[in-house]
Amino acid sequence: MAAPSRLLIRGGRVVNDDCSRVADVLVEDGVVRALGRDLLSPGDAPAGLRVLDAGGKLVLPGGIDTHTHMQFPFMGSRSVDDFHQGTKAALAGGTTMIIDFAIPQKGGSLIEAFETWRSWADPKVCCDYSLHVAVTWWSDQVKEEMKVLARDKGVNSFKMFMAYKDLYMVRDTELYAAFSQCKEIGAIAQVHAENGDLIAEGAKKMLALGITGPEGHELCRPEAVEAEATLRAITIAGAVNCPLYIVHVMSKSAARVIADARRHGKVVYGEPIAAGLGTDGTHYWNKEWHHAAHHVMGPPLRPDPSTPDFLMNLLANDDLTTTGTDHCTFNTCQKALGKDDFTKIPNGVNGVEDRMSVIWEKGVHSGKMDENRFVAVTSTNAAKIFNLYPRKGRIAVGSDADIVIWDPKATRTISAKTHHQAVNFNIFEGMVCHGVPLVTISRGKVVYKDGVFNVMSGDGKFIPRKPFADYVYKRIKQRDQTCAPTPVKREPYKGEIITLKSSAGTRMQAYS
Amino acid sequence: MAAPSRLLIRGGRVVNDDCSRVADVLVEDGVVRALGRDLLSPGDAPAGLRVLDAGGKLVLPGGIDTHTHMQFPFMGSRSVDDFHQGTKAALAGGTTMIIDFAIPQKGGSLIEAFETWRSWADPKVCCDYSLHVAVTWWSDQVKEEMKVLARDKGVNSFKMFMAYKDLYMVRDTELYAAFSQCKEIGAIAQVHAENGDLIAEGAKKMLALGITGPEGHELCRPEAVEAEATLRAITIAGAVNCPLYIVHVMSKSAARVIADARRHGKVVYGEPIAAGLGTDGTHYWNKEWHHAAHHVMGPPLRPDPSTPDFLMNLLANDDLTTTGTDHCTFNTCQKALGKDDFTKIPNGVNGVEDRMSVIWEKGVHSGKMDENRFVAVTSTNAAKIFNLYPRKGRIAVGSDADIVIWDPKATRTISAKTHHQAVNFNIFEGMVCHGVPLVTISRGKVVYKDGVFNVMSGDGKFIPRKPFADYVYKRIKQRDQTCAPTPVKREPYKGEIITLKSSAGTRMQAYS
Amino acid sequence: MAAPSRLLIRGGRVVNDDCSRVADVLVEDGVVRALGRDLLSPGDAPAGLRVLDAGGKLVLPGGIDTHTHMQFPFMGSRSVDDFHQGTKAALAGGTTMIIDFAIPQKGGSLIEAFETWRSWADPKVCCDYSLHVAVTWWSDQVKEEMKVLARDKGVNSFKMFMAYKDLYMVRDTELYAAFSQCKEIGAIAQVHAENGDLIAEGAKKMLALGITGPEGHELCRPEAVEAEATLRAITIAGAVNCPLYIVHVMSKSAARVIADARRHGKVVYGEPIAAGLGTDGTHYWNKEWHHAAHHVMGPPLRPDPSTPDFLMNLLANDDLTTTGTDHCTFNTCQKALGKDDFTKIPNGVNGVEDRMSVIWEKGVHSGKMDENRFVAVTSTNAAKIFNLYPRKGRIAVGSDADIVIWDPKATRTISAKTHHQAVNFNIFEGMVCHGVPLVTISRGKVVYKDGVFNVMSGDGKFIPRKPFADYVYKRIKQRDQTCAPTPVKREPYKGEIITLKSSAGTRMQAYS
Amino acid sequence: MAAPSRLLIRGGRVVNDDCSRVADVLVEDGVVRALGRDLLSPGDAPAGLRVLDAGGKLVLPGGIDTHTHMQFPFMGSRSVDDFHQGTKAALAGGTTMIIDFAIPQKGGSLIEAFETWRSWADPKVCCDYSLHVAVTWWSDQVKEEMKVLARDKGVNSFKMFMAYKDLYMVRDTELYAAFSQCKEIGAIAQVHAENGDLIAEGAKKMLALGITGPEGHELCRPEAVEAEATLRAITIAGAVNCPLYIVHVMSKSAARVIADARRHGKVVYGEPIAAGLGTDGTHYWNKEWHHAAHHVMGPPLRPDPSTPDFLMNLLANDDLTTTGTDHCTFNTCQKALGKDDFTKIPNGVNGVEDRMSVIWEKGVHSGKMDENRFVAVTSTNAAKIFNLYPRKGRIAVGSDADIVIWDPKATRTISAKTHHQAVNFNIFEGMVCHGVPLVTISRGKVVYKDGVFNVMSGDGKFIPRKPFADYVYKRIKQRDQTCAPTPVKREPYKGEIITLKSSAGTRMQAYS
Repeated sequence: MAAPSRLLIRGGRVVNDDCSRVADVLVEDGVVRALGRDLLSPGDAPAGLRVLDAGGKLVLPGGIDTHTHMQFPFMGSRSVDDFHQGTKAALAGGTTMIIDFAIPQKGGSLIEAFETWRSWADPKVCCDYSLHVAVTWWSDQVKEEMKVLARDKGVNSFKMFMAYKDLYMVRDTELYAAFSQCKEIGAIAQVHAENGDLIAEGAKKMLALGITGPEGHELCRPEAVEAEATLRAITIAGAVNCPLYIVHVMSKSAARVIADARRHGKVVYGEPIAAGLGTDGTHYWNKEWHHAAHHVMGPPLRPDPSTPDFLMNLLANDDLTTTGTDHCTFNTCQKALGKDDFTKIPNGVNGVEDRMSVIWEKGVHSGKMDENRFVAVTSTNAAKIFNLYPRKGRIAVGSDADIVIWDPKATRTISAKTHHQAVNFNIFEGMVCHGVPLVTISRGKVVYKDGVFNVMSGDGKFIPRKPFADYVYKRIKQRDQTCAPTPVKREPYKGEIITLKSSAGTRMQAYS
Repeated sequence: MAAPSRLLIRGGRVVNDDCSRVADVLVEDGVVRALGRDLLSPGDAPAGLRVLDAGGKLVLPGGIDTHTHMQFPFMGSRSVDDFHQGTKAALAGGTTMIIDFAIPQKGGSLIEAFETWRSWADPKVCCDYSLHVAVTWWSDQVKEEMKVLARDKGVNSFKMFMAYKDLYMVRDTELYAAFSQCKEIGAIAQVHAENGDLIAEGAKKMLALGITGPEGHELCRPEAVEAEATLRAITIAGAVNCPLYIVHVMSKSAARVIADARRHGKVVYGEPIAAGLGTDGTHYWNKEWHHAAHHVMGPPLRPDPSTPDFLMNLLANDDLTTTGTDHCTFNTCQKALGKDDFTKIPNGVNGVEDRMSVIWEKGVHSGKMDENRFVAVTSTNAAKIFNLYPRKGRIAVGSDADIVIWDPKATRTISAKTHHQAVNFNIFEGMVCHGVPLVTISRGKVVYKDGVFNVMSGDGKFIPRKPFADYVYKRIKQRDQTCAPTPVKREPYKGEIITLKSSAGTRMQAYS
Repeated sequence: MAAPSRLLIRGGRVVNDDCSRVADVLVEDGVVRALGRDLLSPGDAPAGLRVLDAGGKLVLPGGIDTHTHMQFPFMGSRSVDDFHQGTKAALAGGTTMIIDFAIPQKGGSLIEAFETWRSWADPKVCCDYSLHVAVTWWSDQVKEEMKVLARDKGVNSFKMFMAYKDLYMVRDTELYAAFSQCKEIGAIAQVHAENGDLIAEGAKKMLALGITGPEGHELCRPEAVEAEATLRAITIAGAVNCPLYIVHVMSKSAARVIADARRHGKVVYGEPIAAGLGTDGTHYWNKEWHHAAHHVMGPPLRPDPSTPDFLMNLLANDDLTTTGTDHCTFNTCQKALGKDDFTKIPNGVNGVEDRMSVIWEKGVHSGKMDENRFVAVTSTNAAKIFNLYPRKGRIAVGSDADIVIWDPKATRTISAKTHHQAVNFNIFEGMVCHGVPLVTISRGKVVYKDGVFNVMSGDGKFIPRKPFADYVYKRIKQRDQTCAPTPVKREPYKGEIITLKSSAGTRMQAYS
Repeated sequence: MAAPSRLLIRGGRVVNDDCSRVADVLVEDGVVRALGRDLLSPGDAPAGLRVLDAGGKLVLPGGIDTHTHMQFPFMGSRSVDDFHQGTKAALAGGTTMIIDFAIPQKGGSLIEAFETWRSWADPKVCCDYSLHVAVTWWSDQVKEEMKVLARDKGVNSFKMFMAYKDLYMVRDTELYAAFSQCKEIGAIAQVHAENGDLIAEGAKKMLALGITGPEGHELCRPEAVEAEATLRAITIAGAVNCPLYIVHVMSKSAARVIADARRHGKVVYGEPIAAGLGTDGTHYWNKEWHHAAHHVMGPPLRPDPSTPDFLMNLLANDDLTTTGTDHCTFNTCQKALGKDDFTKIPNGVNGVEDRMSVIWEKGVHSGKMDENRFVAVTSTNAAKIFNLYPRKGRIAVGSDADIVIWDPKATRTISAKTHHQAVNFNIFEGMVCHGVPLVTISRGKVVYKDGVFNVMSGDGKFIPRKPFADYVYKRIKQRDQTCAPTPVKREPYKGEIITLKSSAGTRMQAYS
């Protein structure tokens, strides 16, 4: 039995990132066909047209979670939300697309990693998805594979780790090379910005001090470690004139570095995540080990309790641009791998289901941003940066019908007992959120309504993304054209030349 | 024929860093013996007492130049001011002590380098001097030699290069190790803060663009390259809780990084130099190749013409602390090694003779700082940081009689034609400076007066410096005691533990 | 003979603030009716449809100049561009709407001023316009008139002067009252932010120093005077929770104050102007009196030559939001009123015709912003803030057909000899600008094409603006609801009370 | 029976602001006569020489509290610590000099106020003191009296209130006039920096919201109100080129304004106080009314709990310079005047006895500053700014023997039960402080030792202060000489001049 091929969302307030207006939305074949007042006369009910009443509600573009790790094999474990459960949870939370990461081991093929992740995700996903690919080492092969991925596989974003020494971490010269290649192929460079050397030293130091619990996780990688790497990445990207995207901005200092760089014209984007916007690192000092351990992620949440508000203000002000979750969930029994040594606690927290409500509560309900900025930071900006716009990220004629009917006045209480995420803990436990997704529509199909799913594994699709996104690359290209330096014209020097001794071979020594 | 063993400087305004007052200064055996009004009755003239009238003049502690490279073998050449000529020029400018650098090659012994520099300097120096030692590579030997140098040789400062890739540059892990050892032995860590990788890439890029002239020097290592390394060094030093000293702060951005770190309580000191305070990088675009080339040094002077004023304001405000010169002079015929390739131009500029007058003119005469702050930044602060205070850096009973009689109202014009430096170019050519040293006294001896020297090679002495300078280390030690983190006390986790597969060996992989 | 009622702009790249795409634009009855690929089959040419080929060109929303003073009686003179000539010049430059200011004298009726300006403008305007109204004094009458203007007259923005002491300036308590009333009626408060007291003192001081030329204009009101008033206005608006709009942001310091306030969540917008983005205050030191005098405006252009780039970076980054011109032109013979006393030079510069090209050149061609951000800052953002969106500021179905066909590659040279502005001087004289408006369409009518006007006085319309613009007020309202403080619940104090003497009447004394 | 006229403090570590060294201190006739190792041979005990053993202890210059209000008639009450009790408490805490404020009513004579305060203090003071005088209104008489006070009465600092509307507050034009006169007579201008208009409005608003408790005190005058006024004062002082001193810096924002201004070269000093460094404004939300009320002072303590650390960091870094207390104590029964209305709670907190220990604990013990910086901020800097140096603020030959023997390792617990202040509440109740004054010596007399006083009313002296303090005025004078603007030399304008109508009288209108 087929779903009705046509859907009318009637009477809601359609919210895009630029403005809101009361309008009906007509959906056909997964796409928005019309948008306007009174598309259907009152009393009218054509066959094959499902009508959803959205009177008094908001009609939003479905959320895009820019940062997830479903069923990720990591630190001796595998994250418990797989592409099925994770994307169902996403839909329940009002998110209709995720972007996950394909991460090869050092020495491994990027394309193989990409295909592996595709093979995991394609049969399981309940919403659309896409894949960033990580660059965890450097070689001509890697360089070539990046090109292939961008040209043929729909990948326009590559992530480099400045942390996870020996596992994923790349050095500055590798960053430079990877950024250069990103620019060449029209991709955006992403970085996990923490100084991996300092973390390794810090971890040794904490263990030596007898600090083995989760608080050691934050103590060995404080804010400065994140801010330093952030500035370094921005500086290297600036030298290359490559666009840069900082994943999971967790601290005030790192966010400030990004905001300052943007003020000076750098093409750099910062992505805070639900965890960092909704809670803080005081939990690492919780007396219950499992409670503390469940907050362990990298970079860590910050003990400064003013951090979430600060990040939200910057997000509201476009100093930070998109929002993800770094959703990478481990059950308590997995976290317990590190019960005697915080460095063995699998890193990761929940969020894919919670993100939209957390941001509404802390961002919109608090008065920091309005509903339009909410749409921008939860959906539109991601679509623009990753070149999905306006297919995704906007309710407009011709766009994919990824839509959420949102009740801004209703509240719900987040709890591991009721959430749809597989994990047995929720870092937002007990948070009362205004802003509840009533209905989620994925490419024209009502997949979640009033707590009931109507979706199957594989209903979602992989969404390829083209390189050279306008939003990101227009300025980059223009600068290449107009800002290139030129030599000073001079008469050649004709005087004496003298040297202490032969200067052969000194150039590359001396100049560096 | 011996010089009179006693000297009276009569009627001057004695300027220390805390205040000024009119007083006579009585000197005996190279040391200040008394300080006060009317130490000698009018008309009195004891035998063996030389009397210098300083009425209407200032009597200042002799300058300490924290950063010189005399007769330095570098980039296929050797700097032309040797320890004789260079220290004579210093005296002529009102500087009575320099601190030079002993720099081993990678793989070389630090102690041997130190002894080599001693053997060059001891027979030649006309004023007191001391030596910083560079750490250009890392090994257990280096670590041990640092200890010996600090304990037995009078070295309490070690410099690490973040630039000069392959030649002197050390990596972050080496910085961490070197900083850790500095702290262990009570030395202050110094860094040349520029990102050597980016400079190497930048140089390749500029040459590829056909930019071979001196302007390429600045273009391949812009401000951001300096600011990034500065923050990185501060972050690493912060992780170690080691005091840090940034040599030759050349840009607004780097200076701002230091100033901000100090505001947050970091024990970090910034050293601008005469070149950066007195001129700027627009000279790299000069149409005369030799003119441009003579300004080449690393980090470069900055093309932003507001840089010198900015640095001087920060120096006046104690955001920056000391002043050196990076005096390392090459004649035009040496600079010419890089006539077709800026990367081969020997790096270095003059300043040891000019520093005091340039800072007086741009700092004091301009109203940015008063005479007391002038003494602080040209002498006292260096003495404190390098543990020479109050023997050096202050005119007080018991202090070395390193004294300058200074005429704040007289002017002189800086010129290569008249300076005492060996080099055939002066980057301050034509600058009219208020503030002229009339008489320079080195440990009680009048060595320069009215343009005439009375000094011989070897009159100066090597001044050993003890570790754990109070000024630098008191806070460091206290923080070690009171700021160490402690573990949270918790019940052990007793629940289930589960893993995907054996997690053996994952710790160091994952945690970094 | 009527113009064709229908217009098709074919094959251009339609640029809105969110993205660009190649599309035809069909216009009917002054409004955009359709937008899409190939709206007309090739070869098709229906009667009554005028077709404009825009292949290879950009199709932009017409510019909105947020700040003009046409035929303004000021400082003993009247600006020479009247509503006819001024709006023609606007159209020639690609601007299809201006917002002028109705400014009553102290004691005068706001409504009368509004009606006076309407009576001047309505018969003359060649493009649409609207009016801000100034509040130059305070009384119950003023308060009431503000309400009437907002409710009945289409005014949702009121400007207060913190400068022009005795003439227009209001005091802080009056600002507080005016801001409070703005909020009550749903208007946005605008301020001219300069400290009028300090300017008055500064002017006296400069004249006393014998400085009578135009350089005195800047010297008596340096950056700090602007930055101080900017922070003060933001603080007062913050106390009221009233949205604020800073007109003509001219200095780096003032812009930084705004940008910082936005980071902390303030609802404040900054408007740089063409003059400040395209030139600087070094002209006040020009040896030709008339040249210097023609740059006199308040706040002045700044002598720091890095100002325009700085402001443009902030504009690109949404730290600043809209752009106007403060177009208020006086011929040399009018400027000459102040030939012996800079305080008598009528303040004002040109820009209404130049703004779009100057911003394209300095903003887009330079690589600081892309074409979409250009549309945002020249049109869309103004439409949003002043509640004209999406009728104005966007090319979308249903929007007014205020459209410019723009050649991004063509260049033109700005000159008083060729401009359409009435004034005999152009502050951008000789500037070569990429980005040329080829065709300007005002509400569906081609009014300017290839240098030829087709427009008559009165063709433009007054556009009323409704209060409580969503873009501005959503956050304000939400904050009122969720951020109101609440009292602490306590047991009443029951202990002894003692006083020195009667405390009657001390409350309002002491508490202030 | 006379006290021994000579005193030897033996074997302590003498701490000045520049360095520390172990030395004996010989005191005669209230003045330090000698300083050095082993001034007395072991076993030697001359008659008339009292010997105090300071082995293992620190010997500090006595503290200078820059800001007290003893027996101040204010808000219908009078502060309970009078000049007797208050100065005894000071001595017990290691403070040997206070500077109080003579505050005339609006319209009242400054000289009369000064004489009144002298008449209160002279017979009572147990330690040396001096008086700032407040300028609470403006007239030629006030101007003249300032001159007399500076010339004849030993007053070189005048305080203006930007808050306390109608009671003490002066307007910007009055500030400008007062600053101008300060500069003329060589005094330093002081301001209480809060926007009095906004406080008055805020207080009305809070009361209207039903907020009558002490929390309303902070809510009606949040940080922004302080920061705004601080910038305004700095801007006005900058226009005058007058040195400025901001009393009681209470917030991070205000402190940042000062620190930034100093970086840009402004001659401005910030004075945090013990209360702001040692506790915070969360107490206003305390459930006990009297507890909350006892923290009421203006500007208020800040609810941001990171404030004290932030201020201490800035104090350590010389962004802030001196420390006072604003000691102005009211018993609970006096505070109770405002039991139903926070605006009637007499403003003021304790601190004169606690300051030294609180700063040692939070500043030195925490590792933020060392013992030398402690001396600088508690004593030396105040002495320099207020022109008492080196008579006060330094242990040196010739200086007043105001000395404290300090045990840095001992601890004591602050409590109203044990303190010597008259007031029945202590805002630092329960704070355990390292750093205990063992002995306090006032001009050579042991006035407090091991908890026992040996001092009488009137033992202290009024200390006159001369104008034009070097530390403050050298830069000011130099800038007046070298930074004055000069006119551009131009040919006179000879062209046409035209006007709309007579321009008579427009200058002062237009230019302001």
